[in-house]
Amino acid sequence: MQRFLSFMTTARLNPSASCFLPRGVGLQSPAYTRMIGTMICTKCKTKAVLKLPRHNAAFCKDCFNSFVQDQVLKAIRTQEMFTKNDRLLVAVSGGKDSLALWAILLKLGYNTDALYVNLGIGGYSESSQEKVVHFSETVAVGYGAVLHVHTVEREEGAGIRELAMLAHRPTCSTCGTIKRYQFNHAAIRHGYDVMATGHNLDDEAARLLGNVLHWQSEYLEKQGPSLPASVDGFAKKVKPLYRLTERELAAYCVLNRIDYVVEECPMAKGARTLLYKEVLNRLETESPGTKQMFYWGFLEKSRQTGAPTTVIEKDRSALHPCSLCGQPTTAETCSYCKLMVRAKTSPAR
Amino acid sequence: MQRFLSFMTTARLNPSASCFLPRGVGLQSPAYTRMIGTMICTKCKTKAVLKLPRHNAAFCKDCFNSFVQDQVLKAIRTQEMFTKNDRLLVAVSGGKDSLALWAILLKLGYNTDALYVNLGIGGYSESSQEKVVHFSETVAVGYGAVLHVHTVEREEGAGIRELAMLAHRPTCSTCGTIKRYQFNHAAIRHGYDVMATGHNLDDEAARLLGNVLHWQSEYLEKQGPSLPASVDGFAKKVKPLYRLTERELAAYCVLNRIDYVVEECPMAKGARTLLYKEVLNRLETESPGTKQMFYWGFLEKSRQTGAPTTVIEKDRSALHPCSLCGQPTTAETCSYCKLMVRAKTSPAR
Repeated sequence: MQRFLSFMTTARLNPSASCFLPRGVGLQSPAYTRMIGTMICTKCKTKAVLKLPRHNAAFCKDCFNSFVQDQVLKAIRTQEMFTKNDRLLVAVSGGKDSLALWAILLKLGYNTDALYVNLGIGGYSESSQEKVVHFSETVAVGYGAVLHVHTVEREEGAGIRELAMLAHRPTCSTCGTIKRYQFNHAAIRHGYDVMATGHNLDDEAARLLGNVLHWQSEYLEKQGPSLPASVDGFAKKVKPLYRLTERELAAYCVLNRIDYVVEECPMAKGARTLLYKEVLNRLETESPGTKQMFYWGFLEKSRQTGAPTTVIEKDRSALHPCSLCGQPTTAETCSYCKLMVRAKTSPAR
Repeated sequence: MQRFLSFMTTARLNPSASCFLPRGVGLQSPAYTRMIGTMICTKCKTKAVLKLPRHNAAFCKDCFNSFVQDQVLKAIRTQEMFTKNDRLLVAVSGGKDSLALWAILLKLGYNTDALYVNLGIGGYSESSQEKVVHFSETVAVGYGAVLHVHTVEREEGAGIRELAMLAHRPTCSTCGTIKRYQFNHAAIRHGYDVMATGHNLDDEAARLLGNVLHWQSEYLEKQGPSLPASVDGFAKKVKPLYRLTERELAAYCVLNRIDYVVEECPMAKGARTLLYKEVLNRLETESPGTKQMFYWGFLEKSRQTGAPTTVIEKDRSALHPCSLCGQPTTAETCSYCKLMVRAKTSPAR
């Protein structure tokens, strides 16, 4: 099992792997059996496939799937994210988290379509789109779910690397602006009630650590996993995977044969979030449960101080429609329109 | 220079080193000159001896000493710690921080005596006491300062390892209880106005990280570097080194020939604080200034929310004299008296 877990951590480094299993090792192979050993499932006492130190438990495939679904249901219910009557739009990237989220929500019977934004990052975007389309055509279609695709290069006239260069903005912030805008735009345009993203516990704990290290009060207020549609033109945004770790979601994909892009985005190298994840992993290794204690503890504290209500009030007093596109913004023109104007009027174009 | 800095980090691992210089390398030796290279002092443009990435500066010995004194003066003034009319008691351990603190306060003209608590941890306590006595007899005596020594084994009948065992308590928490009690007791008994400890920026940032990871509101309220004497029987407690890092204080001792115990306490191995320091160092390396931004930002936030006033009010409503010794406590008996009663009535005694 130890070897399996350590492999689960290092596999990210192998760009040719299409899932978290080594080449030539199938889920039923003797090599895999040797790796996972003879650990017993905490629930049903059959052979376990995964150990979860933060819950002091080990699970077989079926019990692990139940655990994952329970955590998602708990997130949806305690944070009042949505009901079976709502139409959901999942933002999928081709990575493990968002594909697992789409799969879980469909399995749980939620009415869930998806949006893929092709950012035009060469082979990485091509490969990501392939995984998304494959999942859509082999799994989602069976539930009657629809995949929307937005291709930045076609719609905005250039990929994000070029747009960032033209607008003199860092690529990652350009990417963030475009994705946030297009996801919200699609949700509003197609009449979805709620927009869901695949942010997991590692993502949220890392983001929280960054915000706490800088004591960024404004961002801290918006760190909840369920942001209301505070004003017209903003979709409600939720993160149903905030109770599950990166490692658990990778395992979910491996066990359920969901094929996803293993590589990090090539533009994300050296990103601060990866550093925060690294130090949180160090703390988690020494003291399992640190991440959930940190993030869930923060949510509990925010609930007590009434932070979600503050967000709605602040949004309502600060936001008004963008003069160019109409999406809510605090400035005269929203950051997406500003970016596009800068890129399109750049002398380098 | 790089070699000097990296040596400054690894020297802690060499238990035989009496300061941060390698064996056979003196401050004036050619080997040392090779190590520090030809960096220029930011202030006076002579040869620098130390680089401070978080201030984007490098200093010669004199300018570095001025920098250290300025930081301490800034701490004393902005946090309203004490004035030249106050009698101060510094808690010295024999380590770099507390000896540097005593040295700096004396040099700045503050009326400062010291207390050393010998915890009875074999050779470690002996060696620590030697360093303290040496500093007292060669430096402090010239300022007319007094060194008080409290020997746990003589006063309480056993060293802290034995007391912890008899009271069935972890050694580190037993040590903390005894030190906190004896320092406060000595300050009150000898009529000192303020008690100062050598906690540095690394200590405070690590403690803050631990408290934030667990969202311990009560501890977060008391994380300031200046705790008022909220009730009778409690001395005012201050941390004048909170603006200086561990590395800077080690350099201060090396440059000013203050001989101190380099080894960590042998009982502290695996302590959570060391882990928090390790991850903060990782963040600091990638982004110099992280620790000060984290801790100073927290202090600014606390000031805005009026946390120091809350502490006084809470203390006044919750504390009353211990039924055995009279020191303020929230319970019937204070934790020190409880510990001593448990140790003295233990069947194992």
